[in-house]
Order: sequence, then C-alpha cells, then structure tokens
Amino acid sequence: MECIIREATIDDCEHLMGLIQEIATYHHLENEITINAQVLKADGFGKDPFFKCLLAEQPGEKGCKPGRPIGHALYFFGYSVNHGKMLYLENLYVVSEFRGKGIGMELLRKVAENALATGCMEMKFMTMDWNRRAKAFYERLGAHDTTESEDFHCMELGRDALERLVQKGSKGQP
Amino acid sequence: MECIIREATIDDCEHLMGLIQEIATYHHLENEITINAQVLKADGFGKDPFFKCLLAEQPGEKGCKPGRPIGHALYFFGYSVNHGKMLYLENLYVVSEFRGKGIGMELLRKVAENALATGCMEMKFMTMDWNRRAKAFYERLGAHDTTESEDFHCMELGRDALERLVQKGSKGQP
Repeated sequence: MECIIREATIDDCEHLMGLIQEIATYHHLENEITINAQVLKADGFGKDPFFKCLLAEQPGEKGCKPGRPIGHALYFFGYSVNHGKMLYLENLYVVSEFRGKGIGMELLRKVAENALATGCMEMKFMTMDWNRRAKAFYERLGAHDTTESEDFHCMELGRDALERLVQKGSKGQP
Repeated sequence: MECIIREATIDDCEHLMGLIQEIATYHHLENEITINAQVLKADGFGKDPFFKCLLAEQPGEKGCKPGRPIGHALYFFGYSVNHGKMLYLENLYVVSEFRGKGIGMELLRKVAENALATGCMEMKFMTMDWNRRAKAFYERLGAHDTTESEDFHCMELGRDALERLVQKGSKGQP
C-alpha cells in the first residue's frame, strides 16, 4: 500500500501517544507506561531531543495535518564499542487494520536510510521472542538474534535502584 | 580503593581503544572490532557526539594527563516508550589487576548520577548471561533481566542488511 512516511512533529504527540498505548496493550504492558503526550513533546522536540520518530500516514490524509498516523518508528542514535555508530530502534508499530500492507517495511526502510546517512554500521533493537510474526519479519531482512547466538540478556536498572546507588555513594559506603 | 572518575577527553582515545580491545578479548569478540582510536575521536568528541565516556584513574596518576585509565564506562542517552528518557550503558570495564576494589561500582555510581541529573527513569544494558560475576554485580544493585522476565531478545541488523533494505526500496520492490 502506498503511504506517506514523514518525520513526526510536536503536533503529532497526542496521536503518537495513542499508538504507544496500543503497542503496550499488544505487549501486555499497558500498566507500565508512565509518559504522556506532554512528556513526549518535551523529550522529543526540545533543544536536545532524546528520540526521533517517523510516522506513516494514509495518502488521502495528507491535506489535513496533523493526520491520524497509522504507524510509527521511534529510534535514537547510539554507539557500539565493536562497530561504532549505531541506530537503536525502540519501537516499530502499525495499527492492526493496516498490517500486512508493507507499511512496517516502508517505515523500516526509511529508518535504514537515516541510519546509513548518519554513518551507522548497524541497527539494534529488541523483540519479544513469543512474537513470532515480528521476529520472522526482522529475520527475513537479515536480522540476527544475539540472545540466541551470544547469550546476550537485556537488563534494566530502574529509577529507584539508580537513586539507591547514588545515595550509597554520598553516604561513603563502598 | 580510592580512584578518580573523570570524563574522557579526545586525548584519551588511544587508551580507551586499548581498554575496548581488552574487553572484546574477554568476551571472545576480538575479531568483531571494526573501530579504532581515530574513529572514537570523531564519533565521541565532535559536534554531535554519539557517546559519553567516564574513565577511572589511579590517584597517583592524576598529575600526568592523560593518565593510563584503569577502567571506563561508555554510555549514551536514549528513550523508552514506556518510561521516557533512559541511559543506555554500552560498556563498563575495569582492568583485571584492579578488579574487586569497587572501581566498577564507582564508575557505575557516576553513570547513575548523570542519568538522574538528565531526568532518566532507567538505565538499560546487556550482559552476557554466562558472565555470572558481572550479572551478580548488577543484580545486587537491583537490575532486572527482561530476557528472563519478559522474553526480550537482543536483535541486530548489520550494515549489509540495512543497505539491502534501502536498495530494495529504490528498485520499487515491495
């Protein structure tokens, strides 16, 4: 399906937040979300943006900006000490009624273009292994599961743990 | 052990590259490295740096800058669509003769300080699951393995695959 891929603007944040809530529900993580549209505006469209975002729009909706996006790709740039510059894809999503039409592929292709234009050597991302459809999509493109091949596990240290770690230092405890 | 934690400068890149090569050897990935000190200088210390880096130095070496670092923490900022701003720790390393003295903890504490000062809600990173010592270190601090709890797998799409994906688009193939 032909669709328009464009960069998100600050005016898209309400729509984008709706898509993020949908994907969280799909991943059974709807209670995990602590951000909202205002936070997205501040974090993505201020002086030092923490992410970049592409939106997919139906062609017919081009005139009425900001159109309701039917999918998004949210990413940021980072670094690998092995390969150098890299692009980290945090989120790729297409609303259910538009799946299977190549829109995810169009979004990902534009992300890949931006990665290459920035000199990135690779794109990293996470998938939930139970989501076979998503994983097969990425593997068809040549993606490699480094949890399987190299035993890499994804780890998180939450804000409480970060605060405990900093406080430990200020009390002089080793 | 008391040590000095400071931000890396462009003059540290040769030393930093030496540490990166050591950690790759430790992880049996020495043939994977495609960057060098020149690349680190360009990518980390230009107009739009792709990473930030803290170094640990022995106190006695403070005078002779740039002193030989005995450890480093390399990180960058990113975004979680669930929790907002986050810090991604790409690499934490202490040379073998200085391990077990709390230097890794000092580096990580300073990383945590920088994360909180930037308003991050979490720190993400990867560990190799076979590296029990590293994993236990992070778990004592409250880190959570989301590969185990939520079935997240780490995925990579290399430069060749990114190029194929972009070319596919330019040929008009869906």
